[in-house]
Amino acid sequence: MAGKRHRVVIVGGGFGGLAAAQALERADVDITLIDRRNHHLFQPLLYQVATASLSTSEIAWPIRHILRKRSEATTLLATVTGVDVAGKAVVLEDGSRVPYDSLILATGARHAYFGHDEWEQFAPGLKTLEDATTIRRKLLLAFEAAERETDPAKRKALLTFVLIGAGPTGVEMAGAIVELARVTLKGEFRSISPDEARVVLIEGGKRVLANFKQELSDYTLKALRDLGVEVELGAAVTEIDAGGVVYGGKRLDVATIIWAAGVQASPAAKWLGVEPDRAGRVKVEADLTVPGHPEIFVVGDTATITMPDGKPVPGVGDGAKQGGKHAARVIKARLGRFGQQIPFRYKHAGDLATIGKRAAVIDFGRFQLKGWMAWWVWGIAHIYFLIDTKNRLAVALSWLWIYLSGQRSARLITQGDAEKKAPIKEMTEA
Amino acid sequence: MAGKRHRVVIVGGGFGGLAAAQALERADVDITLIDRRNHHLFQPLLYQVATASLSTSEIAWPIRHILRKRSEATTLLATVTGVDVAGKAVVLEDGSRVPYDSLILATGARHAYFGHDEWEQFAPGLKTLEDATTIRRKLLLAFEAAERETDPAKRKALLTFVLIGAGPTGVEMAGAIVELARVTLKGEFRSISPDEARVVLIEGGKRVLANFKQELSDYTLKALRDLGVEVELGAAVTEIDAGGVVYGGKRLDVATIIWAAGVQASPAAKWLGVEPDRAGRVKVEADLTVPGHPEIFVVGDTATITMPDGKPVPGVGDGAKQGGKHAARVIKARLGRFGQQIPFRYKHAGDLATIGKRAAVIDFGRFQLKGWMAWWVWGIAHIYFLIDTKNRLAVALSWLWIYLSGQRSARLITQGDAEKKAPIKEMTEA
Repeated sequence: MAGKRHRVVIVGGGFGGLAAAQALERADVDITLIDRRNHHLFQPLLYQVATASLSTSEIAWPIRHILRKRSEATTLLATVTGVDVAGKAVVLEDGSRVPYDSLILATGARHAYFGHDEWEQFAPGLKTLEDATTIRRKLLLAFEAAERETDPAKRKALLTFVLIGAGPTGVEMAGAIVELARVTLKGEFRSISPDEARVVLIEGGKRVLANFKQELSDYTLKALRDLGVEVELGAAVTEIDAGGVVYGGKRLDVATIIWAAGVQASPAAKWLGVEPDRAGRVKVEADLTVPGHPEIFVVGDTATITMPDGKPVPGVGDGAKQGGKHAARVIKARLGRFGQQIPFRYKHAGDLATIGKRAAVIDFGRFQLKGWMAWWVWGIAHIYFLIDTKNRLAVALSWLWIYLSGQRSARLITQGDAEKKAPIKEMTEA
Repeated sequence: MAGKRHRVVIVGGGFGGLAAAQALERADVDITLIDRRNHHLFQPLLYQVATASLSTSEIAWPIRHILRKRSEATTLLATVTGVDVAGKAVVLEDGSRVPYDSLILATGARHAYFGHDEWEQFAPGLKTLEDATTIRRKLLLAFEAAERETDPAKRKALLTFVLIGAGPTGVEMAGAIVELARVTLKGEFRSISPDEARVVLIEGGKRVLANFKQELSDYTLKALRDLGVEVELGAAVTEIDAGGVVYGGKRLDVATIIWAAGVQASPAAKWLGVEPDRAGRVKVEADLTVPGHPEIFVVGDTATITMPDGKPVPGVGDGAKQGGKHAARVIKARLGRFGQQIPFRYKHAGDLATIGKRAAVIDFGRFQLKGWMAWWVWGIAHIYFLIDTKNRLAVALSWLWIYLSGQRSARLITQGDAEKKAPIKEMTEA
């Protein structure tokens, strides 16, 4: 299959890698897309899996299926362990090598704990489907344990939910947990009332949604407080353990802590033997290639690049998509013997986040939208961006159902036996 | 909450336990339903989760939600470790006790390996949602590994799928795997053609669907063979290991083996300190109570009882449902000071099984149905028996989609890191 055609290897089937593969359609290249997962994940809705609104299969698709009609594209389910930069080959876990002429690394990021990796076991983050079902299990088990708990202090800790980081994920999770407790679980318990649940959103900075216009941050803060979320701003977290969290000098006893604060790039810099930035990202040239290696592109959350206006490309799905498309464009231009170095220009389409069931904020830069209209735009945009018709119908049905009945259809506590037996203590394993 | 009302404790939220709780509506009793899962599972469609047609949340509902409007009913997510028969209390894992006046044990069954428990790691069975996602992962990973395998013998083993036991589960799984390989995965691989996949159904007895009329068994056998399933009858399995299976003296190298042969009742007999039958079931009186303990009922797959016509009550969902309802009826009769011993009469509604995408067999006793009409009746009946409207719509949408496009929407390989790293060898953990 390799033949003499230009071989493009793409590592990562997220927004960046998939956009690159799609933009290379009809180019005279052979493509190999490698991912250690069999599915592409629509991360913007992952928090809805974590809060039992959507099921895993509604926001994930087999990468192989997406590329099925592209006979020049091969999908490999495999884990990459390194890159032989001199020999131009990607090295897989079993030692086998996948040679390339051009390489696109789009391996994304994981959550980072700012040097406190030991916090992860107490405060899981949200990046994969397993992360989402782990958080869903923690949330639902907390209510179950509270129902059986007779000590009022312990019960209070079980009914307290802390989110660390007030970016879009933290804000959206906070609203969704309030809905879950107040609407979905209402009337289903006998010893507790789920609306006793406290949701605390802790942010080290001075604003929620710091990347949005000040006006939208203010609106969101008010909307969250109206929903009943306790928002703590300028409160740095200094300790997390099995029993609670310390922030701004105060200790809060709490059973469920969710991390939505920081990310760390995947180990692409290590594979390439280059010096990463503080967040583990690879510093790339203006055309997204690695200095000294014009055949290697790094896109999305794995790369760091500053636009001519002095702003960094944000770590959002659209940044990765545009990066992937750009890499494809450069490869096509080179094959056509056009310009060798086309600089990447990121166009920021906008930022958006929902707050609970009926409000959202959208920052298009030139104008802003907030409230219920923004919520509808948010919902329609997300359905539009899902990958296939079946999933659009399924998500629309799930949302319509939640909207009308308040009932969430994915309230499942699933996992291996170890966790089942010790619901509270052993929830650290993914 | 206990007050002076009659306290009924139900262990198990499957078909039997839930039917009992529902039949006790408006009786003057307090109910506690205990399950170690938070969800009721619609087991007849579990094989569709295992073969990527349905997602887990489409066939499972929180028990707590089902009983939300029954203020006299309390749902506990807890693991039962024993019964204090003399003290009339159920003992939970944390040592706490739940006292009862009447007890209904409806704890179901697990798959059994006829004294070869070591086979379980190589040939998982299908009883829980985790079993289903484990089998789904095994099936999908086998195709992925075959795509990367260069040794023809190993590739052949990876593309061979063995089902042991030709009851409804084995027959339905066999047809679904053929569909998965031939239709769903078609054209998505580059090194293999998924329709090279061999599906082998091994049965120790002389017929497939041995509980059905001979005519329907014959039809099913022919329909399976027309689909391309290799059916091996009268072939006892004598060995299963990581590399294959030995049956009828022959060894077959195969990577994926699924167990659909035998079940073993849950440990209720041990809890009660009574002698179980060979399959681990509790022998009960004509009214489903334990000899010497008229206050303890055992229903469904956990009990064994022979009807006056000499036939045993089959281990099917409807048997458990009728048993649960009967226990509720006896409890209500006693509270009303009516008859003390009402014998259980099982009414067999019928047996049904699908074979692939467009055929099914239904045995109503008095008449039989087979072919595409049976398939439609099967589909409509299953949607009807699902628990809520949202799930009926979601399952109908999923089936319609598969019917029209051949595409299955739940093709996800998910699980902890250990399994991801060694896809073939480490798939035994649930």
